[in-house]
Amino acid sequence: MPELRRDPIIGRWVVIATERGKLQPNFSKNRTDLPSFSPDCPFCPGNESKTPPEILSFRETGTQKNEKGWWVRVVPNKYPVLRVEGNLNRHGEGMFDYMEGIGAHEVIIETPVHNASFLELENKDVEEIVWAWRDRILDLKKDLRFEYILLFKNHGIDAGASLVHPHSQIIAMPTVPVRIKQELEGAHNYFEYKERCIFCDIIHEEVDANLRIVSENEDFICIAPFASKYPFEIWILPKVHSSVFEDLEKHEVINFAAILRDINGRLNRTLESPPYNFVIHTSPCKVGKIPHYHWHMELMPRLIKSAGVEWGTGFYINPTPPEEAARFLRETQ
Amino acid sequence: MPELRRDPIIGRWVVIATERGKLQPNFSKNRTDLPSFSPDCPFCPGNESKTPPEILSFRETGTQKNEKGWWVRVVPNKYPVLRVEGNLNRHGEGMFDYMEGIGAHEVIIETPVHNASFLELENKDVEEIVWAWRDRILDLKKDLRFEYILLFKNHGIDAGASLVHPHSQIIAMPTVPVRIKQELEGAHNYFEYKERCIFCDIIHEEVDANLRIVSENEDFICIAPFASKYPFEIWILPKVHSSVFEDLEKHEVINFAAILRDINGRLNRTLESPPYNFVIHTSPCKVGKIPHYHWHMELMPRLIKSAGVEWGTGFYINPTPPEEAARFLRETQ
Repeated sequence: MPELRRDPIIGRWVVIATERGKLQPNFSKNRTDLPSFSPDCPFCPGNESKTPPEILSFRETGTQKNEKGWWVRVVPNKYPVLRVEGNLNRHGEGMFDYMEGIGAHEVIIETPVHNASFLELENKDVEEIVWAWRDRILDLKKDLRFEYILLFKNHGIDAGASLVHPHSQIIAMPTVPVRIKQELEGAHNYFEYKERCIFCDIIHEEVDANLRIVSENEDFICIAPFASKYPFEIWILPKVHSSVFEDLEKHEVINFAAILRDINGRLNRTLESPPYNFVIHTSPCKVGKIPHYHWHMELMPRLIKSAGVEWGTGFYINPTPPEEAARFLRETQ
Repeated sequence: MPELRRDPIIGRWVVIATERGKLQPNFSKNRTDLPSFSPDCPFCPGNESKTPPEILSFRETGTQKNEKGWWVRVVPNKYPVLRVEGNLNRHGEGMFDYMEGIGAHEVIIETPVHNASFLELENKDVEEIVWAWRDRILDLKKDLRFEYILLFKNHGIDAGASLVHPHSQIIAMPTVPVRIKQELEGAHNYFEYKERCIFCDIIHEEVDANLRIVSENEDFICIAPFASKYPFEIWILPKVHSSVFEDLEKHEVINFAAILRDINGRLNRTLESPPYNFVIHTSPCKVGKIPHYHWHMELMPRLIKSAGVEWGTGFYINPTPPEEAARFLRETQ
């Protein structure tokens, strides 16, 4: 019997339609034959002049900006979605509303190694990436024109990446994305009713049920969410309430890096290095620390072609129950 | 300069980011070499026994059910997302909510010809498809367990179709999809403020601006919407206010079929037969005729790989301004 499940935060119903046949993973091994250095790759060491000048780098002492010697490097996106220059002009034209495309669009080059993934890196390398994310978010938040700082990663060509060299991206934008707005609203309604954070309650519930937990450590828990929209969708949440990603303490940075590497390994072993996207959901710039919102990472492996019904209606059909996805990922060796 | 535009109905901001480079259409000619009959296709005439027994067919007098002689045939989906049997039981488990997957999932086989598209069909053939859609919707609405009847089409493998033989689908569901809910809410707010239908106002505005009109006839207008989420996204709206698709009058069926064929031709000539999805947005079963909602078809050619940012945030980046898309489609010969 197919089953409908309601996302407790925004109220979206999802069909868990197991009878549609088991997932046929779209095995994508687009990394297998990559070299560790590619002379044409603008993100490889030695090619620093092929990117716009760097905004931030963590590098060996004695090395120069925009030269070799870095282990994490942040540069402006060469083809930005939004631009820093200009004012936040809004105007109408008849009934339609425009806003100038003010913002920032940066690329975090996560490692000098062309074919690395979180798995080939050491925990401490991933910690450096997390510190770089945090530094850039803190810096961008100083610009009061921005309403939301979006941190995300497209991994693999099928997930929309245009370059294979490991990188994540930050877009600072003059508006709060609708999904975040809906989550804030749903979480606020829940708080009004219960005086508790809905995400904290979900963590509690998941620990009790012990059905959808993928992995955990001292500071973080990774679950396959109850109303997963996609096969093997997973969320990583801090166990202690926090609405703001960049409020991470040092031990949390260490444990966030550890769980990221752990999850990456589980996905690679279970689904053979799938393309994926992740996005950090965090409190908007001008909202800050609040009791009802809880930052988290949402990660979606790209295993099936989405059809028109999802795009046109927001009604999702997922052939893989999250309990099954969590079990696969939990039990992988 | 990139530009942000606000969807007037649900308030979603979209970036029109032309500097990201012009669209490179993903030319998909997956229909070119298809035969007009395929012995293995369950939707081809003579293979009627390969589908579940038919629910409706328009066929030559003297021919038998579940045999040749039909020009439109409706059958249950062999792998249904939702099932008719059962009760609408809802239950909770801790903080989580379930509903049984009650519903119906039908396939409208649009033509006996394996490799046909709306373009190869005559206007009167497409009218028959529209009549079949309408009949099935009317029948499914008699079942009071259903809240929404979703009519959609996945055309081409890259748009999620699993069979190439021309077909559309209907899912009757026990809940209203979130996108429809959001539109109803936005349209209601606008009506409260203006006492006018927002879609009627959009049609008025588009006719005045004459920038984003793709095509029109006596009863319908096709536009590239102001805040298009995807390149070449188009909407078809009835010119006279109507919230309920199946209230189509005969002359409207004729003109809806005509504009569907016209649009199909424009897409095929401009984008070389792209894969696409369309979805009908109409008033939910228990809402019915209302002054503030306006049924319409949303059609999205699948030309670019969507990246994680759209999926995880609802923040869309569209490289093709709708004015340009509309001009291409309008001027095609």
